[in-house]
Amino acid sequence: MSSIKSILLKPMFYDKWTNVEVKGWISSNRGNNKIRFIELNDGSTIDNLQLVFKGSKFNFNLLDQLKPGAAIVVNGVLNATPNAQQPIEMIVENIVSHKNVDDDYPIQSQEMKLETLRDIPHLRHRTSILKAIMIIRSTLAQEVHKYFINKEFHYLNSPIITGNDGEGAGETFNVSDNSSTEPFFGRNKKATLGVTGQLHGESYSLGFQKIYTFGPTFRAERSNTKRHLAEFWMIEPEVAFYDLKDIISLADDMLKVVIRNTIHKHKKEIEFLDKITNSNLLKRLNHFVETPLKVVDYTEAISELEKVKDIFENKDIKYGLDLASEHEKYLTEKIYNGPIAVINFPKDFKAFYMKQNDDKKSVAAFDLLVPGIGELVGGSQRECDYHKLVTRVNELNIDQNDLQWYLDLRRFGHMMSSGFGLGFERLVMYVTGTENIRDSIPYPRTTGNIRM
Amino acid sequence: MSSIKSILLKPMFYDKWTNVEVKGWISSNRGNNKIRFIELNDGSTIDNLQLVFKGSKFNFNLLDQLKPGAAIVVNGVLNATPNAQQPIEMIVENIVSHKNVDDDYPIQSQEMKLETLRDIPHLRHRTSILKAIMIIRSTLAQEVHKYFINKEFHYLNSPIITGNDGEGAGETFNVSDNSSTEPFFGRNKKATLGVTGQLHGESYSLGFQKIYTFGPTFRAERSNTKRHLAEFWMIEPEVAFYDLKDIISLADDMLKVVIRNTIHKHKKEIEFLDKITNSNLLKRLNHFVETPLKVVDYTEAISELEKVKDIFENKDIKYGLDLASEHEKYLTEKIYNGPIAVINFPKDFKAFYMKQNDDKKSVAAFDLLVPGIGELVGGSQRECDYHKLVTRVNELNIDQNDLQWYLDLRRFGHMMSSGFGLGFERLVMYVTGTENIRDSIPYPRTTGNIRM
Repeated sequence: MSSIKSILLKPMFYDKWTNVEVKGWISSNRGNNKIRFIELNDGSTIDNLQLVFKGSKFNFNLLDQLKPGAAIVVNGVLNATPNAQQPIEMIVENIVSHKNVDDDYPIQSQEMKLETLRDIPHLRHRTSILKAIMIIRSTLAQEVHKYFINKEFHYLNSPIITGNDGEGAGETFNVSDNSSTEPFFGRNKKATLGVTGQLHGESYSLGFQKIYTFGPTFRAERSNTKRHLAEFWMIEPEVAFYDLKDIISLADDMLKVVIRNTIHKHKKEIEFLDKITNSNLLKRLNHFVETPLKVVDYTEAISELEKVKDIFENKDIKYGLDLASEHEKYLTEKIYNGPIAVINFPKDFKAFYMKQNDDKKSVAAFDLLVPGIGELVGGSQRECDYHKLVTRVNELNIDQNDLQWYLDLRRFGHMMSSGFGLGFERLVMYVTGTENIRDSIPYPRTTGNIRM
Repeated sequence: MSSIKSILLKPMFYDKWTNVEVKGWISSNRGNNKIRFIELNDGSTIDNLQLVFKGSKFNFNLLDQLKPGAAIVVNGVLNATPNAQQPIEMIVENIVSHKNVDDDYPIQSQEMKLETLRDIPHLRHRTSILKAIMIIRSTLAQEVHKYFINKEFHYLNSPIITGNDGEGAGETFNVSDNSSTEPFFGRNKKATLGVTGQLHGESYSLGFQKIYTFGPTFRAERSNTKRHLAEFWMIEPEVAFYDLKDIISLADDMLKVVIRNTIHKHKKEIEFLDKITNSNLLKRLNHFVETPLKVVDYTEAISELEKVKDIFENKDIKYGLDLASEHEKYLTEKIYNGPIAVINFPKDFKAFYMKQNDDKKSVAAFDLLVPGIGELVGGSQRECDYHKLVTRVNELNIDQNDLQWYLDLRRFGHMMSSGFGLGFERLVMYVTGTENIRDSIPYPRTTGNIRM
């Protein structure tokens, strides 16, 4: 069996007399009682293979009844059509099997609203737009794994159910079973869905040196925005003996390799999304992979923003400001015109575990900002001085007992490490031009929304 | 920087005068005031690189104090030692940095009990045995992804929080937030942790044809056994247009490729575990990858077991018996002496969605059994006839409303599909010779146990 993608990519590979079997779902069906043209899609690409049915061996009444969405298996010979829109078509010799769809199949040939499609997450990937997005999502995930496999990183599955809530910030989901006796994990034990794999990641970077997680994380935030999900996937590498500079290079290299390989593999899908979203997608992505990352100190970013403060909603630009999306986008799009890593943020709005700089007020953190989306990655060097870290935990009124195992890592050979977090759906949005995060994940979960 | 694995694998690659930097943690430290031998491990392999310190440039008092678990970065030249136990050693020229461990570091050089180590999941991977297991776990996961990438499968992230509980069997965990107002996902909405990704997987096999999931799944079973976890990872491929025979071949091929590549990559770790577990591990694994899979009808299996029924605890061997572990192991170890796929089980103890055979009493299901562990994989062809499936759902008193979206797939171009589920920790146990499933996952969750 050949995929339609491979047939369309290498039409010359197929000898006119080779008999090929294809399987898939009908995108469109037109013709008359003597000849039928069926566009077939098999999910390997958004492009279709045109099937041509002609001759007395076919039941044209039956063929006429096959609707978009119907499954069909056929074999036939491939025929190069260099002068037509498609490079190749199949002259069908035999229908192996078929199964039609009922009349209420909700996917229509004409364009449907993304909002409407969100009601049918079990079917919406059978439209061209969601198909293109989900093909790219799958490849991005696989390219992330390939990147880390090639670099000999250890793949860690951080626990999902945990008593640790990471940064101590953000709402967590609670986990319980139906029993009315003792709680499943024991009395007085917190059992929540993890908001990050990082703390456990650090424990494995001690011993394995280069590790990454890639798994689901959860926030019980009741925000109904285009950028929030209750359930999302995170990629979190952690590397022992890496400092801030090293981890920024890793983030930059990983993004460029993964995006470059994905563009290369899915030119058709990205061109299609470029046209649909009208967002200069391909140009933007190529610019990103070709432009060296600039590293900008937070104080420099503030002084640049201060010069044009009147254009922002929040005009109070001074040291201590937690950059909002408007500031981030202006920095990367207007001032530096390319990807930047802002470093050395004030410690006040950053997580407790980040390495404190010698100036006593900033931490060795970075945010990687890209045109069109703002923050894509956040990370830091970790504070490995046990006493400094304990002092910080207590300053912030975080319960030290809960975190003692994590703090102890500093006493057990934790010399230096750095890591970052990449929200996978943010990456999918960036590479597909998707505006609403609910269209970047197969079955989105948000407050009030748990379809299927 | 070079990994210790690459140095030990290719000692001849390193010229005597090449200066190399290595980083890692100390396994052992012996010597006197003139010469020190430190065994260094960096997590790339369980093997250590011997560092030799000699000469007046070193502070031997300081070196003497460095304890197992301490981090150290050094550079030096590599020196082939063809007559020693290790093929190569490093003559250290310079200590770049180091960080000692506190006295209460609980990992000791002598062998520790696995049970004791379960209390410290954040540190136990720094023993040789857990290090070996977790290295193999990581590679197995990566090899699974590589296998499906090479076969052009679509990687699907099934939702974790869901209202569907899969087979309708087994206890599920509930998910809620801390708010006292409306439930997070809405009133009268079930929100549980998924027990399988299969139902959602089928929806994506329609459209993408070949998909797989690889993510966490959950069961709130209060069983404290060596084989139960509340949180575990599952691999669930689903392929449209595949029948039972096709899906069995996929399971067999995937296991063989993944295991073969893992053995090849981790000979040292598997030999070490073979010795420690005294379980003929390597021989067993080689036998598995070299032996063609036999397909055995359930009725044949029953008649074979019936001949020797007196040796079993459950001696009531007849059509309708749900094979227990003792029967499974006897079949694969004694009768067929190799991996087998038992097919066509009675429908009564199999899931509702399995294809009903023409005999009206069995389903097109399979269990893949292997010597030493019993069931490793279970799967089936799916029932794609809407009316037969609805009838079965009602026979079993499953709430049809909850599943209507899944049943509807049959009306929307679902001609044929098949899939299987592989519990990833079962695979890790099989390939590492681990006897307790809690040692096959970094942070195990069982009833009463949620460390870190």
